[in-house]
Amino acid sequence: MIVVSSAGLSSERTKELEEEFPEVDFRFHPSMKEAEQDLPEAEVLLTFGEDVDEEHITMAASLKWINIISAGMDKMPFQSIKERDILVTNARGIHGNPMAEYTFHMMLHVSRQMPVLMKQQDNAAWDRSPVMTELRGKTLLTAGTGAIASETARLGKAFHMRTIGINRTGSPAPHFDETAAAGGLEEACREADFIVSVLPKMPETDHFFTDRIFQSMKPTAVFINIGRGNAVDEKALLNALEQGRPAHAVLDVFQEEPLPASSPFWEHPHVTVTPHLSGISPEYLPRACRMFADNLTKYLSGSTSFINPVDPEKGY
Amino acid sequence: MIVVSSAGLSSERTKELEEEFPEVDFRFHPSMKEAEQDLPEAEVLLTFGEDVDEEHITMAASLKWINIISAGMDKMPFQSIKERDILVTNARGIHGNPMAEYTFHMMLHVSRQMPVLMKQQDNAAWDRSPVMTELRGKTLLTAGTGAIASETARLGKAFHMRTIGINRTGSPAPHFDETAAAGGLEEACREADFIVSVLPKMPETDHFFTDRIFQSMKPTAVFINIGRGNAVDEKALLNALEQGRPAHAVLDVFQEEPLPASSPFWEHPHVTVTPHLSGISPEYLPRACRMFADNLTKYLSGSTSFINPVDPEKGY
Repeated sequence: MIVVSSAGLSSERTKELEEEFPEVDFRFHPSMKEAEQDLPEAEVLLTFGEDVDEEHITMAASLKWINIISAGMDKMPFQSIKERDILVTNARGIHGNPMAEYTFHMMLHVSRQMPVLMKQQDNAAWDRSPVMTELRGKTLLTAGTGAIASETARLGKAFHMRTIGINRTGSPAPHFDETAAAGGLEEACREADFIVSVLPKMPETDHFFTDRIFQSMKPTAVFINIGRGNAVDEKALLNALEQGRPAHAVLDVFQEEPLPASSPFWEHPHVTVTPHLSGISPEYLPRACRMFADNLTKYLSGSTSFINPVDPEKGY
Repeated sequence: MIVVSSAGLSSERTKELEEEFPEVDFRFHPSMKEAEQDLPEAEVLLTFGEDVDEEHITMAASLKWINIISAGMDKMPFQSIKERDILVTNARGIHGNPMAEYTFHMMLHVSRQMPVLMKQQDNAAWDRSPVMTELRGKTLLTAGTGAIASETARLGKAFHMRTIGINRTGSPAPHFDETAAAGGLEEACREADFIVSVLPKMPETDHFFTDRIFQSMKPTAVFINIGRGNAVDEKALLNALEQGRPAHAVLDVFQEEPLPASSPFWEHPHVTVTPHLSGISPEYLPRACRMFADNLTKYLSGSTSFINPVDPEKGY
């Protein structure tokens, strides 16, 4: 069986896989360009997901399984995948840990006035007056209640926060005190101290955060976007910040990435910009390859109980 | 019964106490200077602790109970207190929440390279290359296993960290995977990614962190001092940072406070300085007064099961 990888894995990773699966013919390539030569023979494709197009699916006539070692599948040609009945699995959930750590870092960074404290250090100023608020007792709202949001809510409970989650149907989810359907977002925002979007990019998440939603936030609220940029009406957010609610926005994702140098977000005193890195972690590839190896074991044994199967109909 | 306060409580706090205890004659003062006039009649003294000296104990001939609404008792005249058999209670543990939040903020701040990310934002630079490490799987060592350390360890477990605590006897403590006596500090430092001192000021904690201890730390270790400055041999720490272990120090407390403008810590690229504020919180006084009120209820009812009694012999 031939497994083709376009993921540019390090020799440490490829060696582990080759040692664990001596019966598999691995073709490891630095990118899709080099991988294309082996696609016609590939039964399994290992990819970061953003390098696969319609043509690749056509070329890979024997393809039965695509394992995406990321969670973003914005560009995946799901129509042809569905027609060919190709299994798709991804690494969703794997981002949960670094993204939840990012979120708590940012909540603490804003609540504990770190930029002010750092300026004080620059000026050798011993000033104990900056007021730092606690996370304890505050309300954490997440748009999305999947693996990343749930891990964030789990830490929220550890910090003695109240957790509210928004999902399609308002169905209960682990570590959330309350959940509500999308229609309940506005009301939930009125009560939230921290609003975290972990929404994936889909037509129905476009401008999920509108003028009206931002206006429902507390003047002390902190809005954090670690999902996808499309969920935020960026003009509405700029207006909202101008009007003082939310108090601060932490943005890791944007409508256009890289964020253009001309964007007003860079210099905005109430915006923290990071370059789409909340999910980046040195632990990522070891974990993603472990997840692939576990799925490969199942695949080879004829099991169908895969970790993280993707429904090509829904695209998640 | 006369309760004298030198704590400069806000009218919100004093009103709450007066309403809850109409039978008590409260004498609220902005500081000890004004409170002195009422000391001879005081049965109970409510104080932040640093304004009480031998003379005050002598003046307060009817004093039966000192309630300190802080945890630091460096200046408390315990000898005379012991001789007079005066009950002392303090607010230890109340600092646990903000100090644990401070600690996790700082661990994430350093691990996630926030100063680098902030500079990138200043320069409108979209650069995803800074390597951010996760707390998950790392080892958290605390010197001290009391309320603050235990709360820190509890959050450590929530972040999937391994927790090691150092205390006098190495006896087990809540939320610690392992504990060791002081003699085990050096060995524990070899394994720790984060070393947090929450040690109080006492003769036996003087220079607890010596040259030798710093040299046993990993080159990636982060040292955080939120206890008292006396625990650190500051010259040894500067030397250790020079030699690259620990990688970074986060210092909230110092041998001399305020930290003199001439201190090399202010400008050190591998030191984060904050002005003794890890325990400051807007929730502090409401919680401390609640704790006093609960103790006052016990006191008035003749109960002796006080919250946080202090042993004047030991001074904690």
